[in-house]
Amino acid sequence: MPVTRADAYARLNGVSGLCVTYGVGGLSVVNALAGAYAEEVPVIVISGAPRTSAKGNQLLMHHTTGDYNLQLSILEKVTVAAVTLTNAEQAPAQIDRTIAACLRYKRPVYIEIPADMVAKPCVTHVSFERPNPLVSDIQALEEAINEAVEWLENSERPIILAGVELHRYGIQKKLQKLVETTGYPIASTLLGKSSISELHPQFIGNYVGALSRDYVKNRVENSDCILCLGAIMSDTNLGGYTAQLKEGQLINANSEKVKIKHHYYYPIDLADFMDGLIAKLSHKSDESLDIQPASQLLSKSFQVQPEQKITNARFYERINHFVADNSTVIAETGDAIIATIDLLIHTDTRFIGQAFYMSIGYSLPACLGAALALPQNRVVLFIGDGSFQMTCQELSTIIRLGLNPIIFLINNDGYTIERMIHDGSYNDIQPWKYHQLPEVFGESISCEVRTEGDLEQALELASKNSDSLCFIEVHLDRFDCCKTLARLTQAVRRN
Amino acid sequence: MPVTRADAYARLNGVSGLCVTYGVGGLSVVNALAGAYAEEVPVIVISGAPRTSAKGNQLLMHHTTGDYNLQLSILEKVTVAAVTLTNAEQAPAQIDRTIAACLRYKRPVYIEIPADMVAKPCVTHVSFERPNPLVSDIQALEEAINEAVEWLENSERPIILAGVELHRYGIQKKLQKLVETTGYPIASTLLGKSSISELHPQFIGNYVGALSRDYVKNRVENSDCILCLGAIMSDTNLGGYTAQLKEGQLINANSEKVKIKHHYYYPIDLADFMDGLIAKLSHKSDESLDIQPASQLLSKSFQVQPEQKITNARFYERINHFVADNSTVIAETGDAIIATIDLLIHTDTRFIGQAFYMSIGYSLPACLGAALALPQNRVVLFIGDGSFQMTCQELSTIIRLGLNPIIFLINNDGYTIERMIHDGSYNDIQPWKYHQLPEVFGESISCEVRTEGDLEQALELASKNSDSLCFIEVHLDRFDCCKTLARLTQAVRRN
Repeated sequence: MPVTRADAYARLNGVSGLCVTYGVGGLSVVNALAGAYAEEVPVIVISGAPRTSAKGNQLLMHHTTGDYNLQLSILEKVTVAAVTLTNAEQAPAQIDRTIAACLRYKRPVYIEIPADMVAKPCVTHVSFERPNPLVSDIQALEEAINEAVEWLENSERPIILAGVELHRYGIQKKLQKLVETTGYPIASTLLGKSSISELHPQFIGNYVGALSRDYVKNRVENSDCILCLGAIMSDTNLGGYTAQLKEGQLINANSEKVKIKHHYYYPIDLADFMDGLIAKLSHKSDESLDIQPASQLLSKSFQVQPEQKITNARFYERINHFVADNSTVIAETGDAIIATIDLLIHTDTRFIGQAFYMSIGYSLPACLGAALALPQNRVVLFIGDGSFQMTCQELSTIIRLGLNPIIFLINNDGYTIERMIHDGSYNDIQPWKYHQLPEVFGESISCEVRTEGDLEQALELASKNSDSLCFIEVHLDRFDCCKTLARLTQAVRRN
Repeated sequence: MPVTRADAYARLNGVSGLCVTYGVGGLSVVNALAGAYAEEVPVIVISGAPRTSAKGNQLLMHHTTGDYNLQLSILEKVTVAAVTLTNAEQAPAQIDRTIAACLRYKRPVYIEIPADMVAKPCVTHVSFERPNPLVSDIQALEEAINEAVEWLENSERPIILAGVELHRYGIQKKLQKLVETTGYPIASTLLGKSSISELHPQFIGNYVGALSRDYVKNRVENSDCILCLGAIMSDTNLGGYTAQLKEGQLINANSEKVKIKHHYYYPIDLADFMDGLIAKLSHKSDESLDIQPASQLLSKSFQVQPEQKITNARFYERINHFVADNSTVIAETGDAIIATIDLLIHTDTRFIGQAFYMSIGYSLPACLGAALALPQNRVVLFIGDGSFQMTCQELSTIIRLGLNPIIFLINNDGYTIERMIHDGSYNDIQPWKYHQLPEVFGESISCEVRTEGDLEQALELASKNSDSLCFIEVHLDRFDCCKTLARLTQAVRRN
């Protein structure tokens, strides 16, 4: 769980670090590190290690298999740089190069420090130099910008599709400028969600293939020029293979290169490319742009029916009016991340969901990391019962640290997302009394919700107790999932 | 946790298998697999994988980093054989060879099955052949046996020191025959604990360097010929570097070779070597053998002082009279595994402790695996509060499966073993109300123990409810650990 805490922290604040025990600690973080690697999250893992002289010892050392290169040889497969510090003279430069790789590629790195190296003086002073960013090929950049500008200016229904690298490279404000300069509508991929405030008048929604609202799906797929920025092209991120994006309608720019239709420009820095577009594109105010802001989802007020049993649809409809300007929203893999596609995030980069790697149990330690990263923003977490059982003890640490997230434990009695793909007894789980857990772990506010009236009371309780964890167990029927999940699982079944 | 369940199952029943999800599952088991590798436990890990055609797919697949060789390339580092089945014709032979390596080397193996291979018919029928055991070099074997016999016959205070490979290679009965043929006293290493019934009149105790009882330490270290069988020579297994075994007093035989003083015989199968000794050694009944059976520890009856606060020493003293012929005892890393050194195990191979790799949290899933492996033997688990928090949700699965272990949760308010090495706030943990957890997870018997009287009631409750989990939270003072732990941590601090 330490990597996942750090992962969420880095998604919000740009980079993070963590320490692990050698062997039993370092080999426990492989899955979480692979997730950070996949989704381009820069975390620095630091581990102790046996003394450099350990190889000569006749006795095998505890917490190892006897192979003192094992941890490095495994972790270097899920990081972009990995080093063991065996020489005090080289150490400062090695550390700097490793951290630089982390910042440059936005992926995890690993630094290992043998026990006998810890106290060694570093004889050489090296001042840390920020890593060189990718340097664009000036002529390729100019040609790419010109070609993109000409196509966009002559297109009738251009649209911007925003991806996760806008978060990672910290260029959300540049995106906003591009959006406002051009007047184009903007949609985000699932991983790119909250690339811009979702209340922005040009933001139309998140595009996740057939899982999107019909208007969003059609508006994106029927565009004659889609300007796709910093997206990771993965199955789940694009609606489980349901996305209908053709290369002939795409300008696809990411952190390394620009692809227009079927040809590449390389190397091109994404920020340089966006700067060029901002400088050259004109403002388009044509009605053909057909912009229906996502914020319209909030125009209808929510009428509580207090005695009515709460349903999945009504729950998320209500929550859309509850999420606030200072909320950080986290959605767990499963029904929750799909159900939150249309939950509007008020501020950019205040949504976290592991939409590509999708390791269940991710969101509870992520909740802890997010609460530490931005203490002024209250975390609102949506997590299913199946996922919660994976990393439940993290709730104890959240209580221990006095953090104040609102946790909605969606209890639908098992792995609902898996039931939709292929049901069987392996989707059943032990029915815990979840709302009693905070009391076992410490002191905290906790309640159960079965009706819409219960939900109102719970939300009031959470609002009144803004300094405390509020743990809200929401009971839903076993097959009561969001409509779009059914469409996703159909697609997964086909593939 | 699935690997650890399987690990305990294999320790008791000889081999086991488990299935994991690709990526998020397979990369989560690296630490537990490394533990099984270190302690020579044969488990077969089976994983699905993306279709063999996935590499050509433009979209990245969820649960991966996009590198479809990643899991195999990592798991092959903590297994003795690893294969991905990409060809139906070769598959049967590949599977057989992989399982054969598991059985031959008593270490984990890995088999990966791409999704599009699952339903392919195997065109070739191959009948499974048990792997060839190691074939001893006949002349080397004879010479080794003769040399060992001559030395043992002429030694004054020979002793047998039994290690873990006697369990793994299923030759416990051969050990018993050797013990009874020769009349020698026998001690076990910590990993080898319960290599023979600890009520056997020649069994003197477990030898763990300076952590052993003085008599055991002196009897082993002052022997003029120690016949050491199948031991893994690791720091913790031998008392944290406190063992005083000199090569000049050792015949060290393991699964591959025999080392006498400073020279090797190779290849020698351990069973062949033991057969030779049984055939040639005479019975020694000399008084100089100085055998004080460990079973004398039970000769003093335990006088309950009902109002007395329970202490670590008195707790384990009482439990020594409680453990039964059909108990499987499991001790968690930390104070528990040290405190159970002198807890007598009535039947061979009915003790489990991860004495070399020492990954905390091991014992709760091991408890589940052991209960499934030998349903007629009731598991008695000793686990500290710090370790318990690592894998606490396994208690839910134990309840779900209706298993009946007795779990002693030793609540000493944090990482006591770490406090003894170097104390600080990082050894404090959140104080859970542990005895309430079974109620949150389901229905089960649970109680708290603070006095000797409470303990008697708890033991009675457990005995009466032999079909149900009994969860017993025992409150001890923060620094109330077993005496030997202090000696171990002193040794660790020095190294």
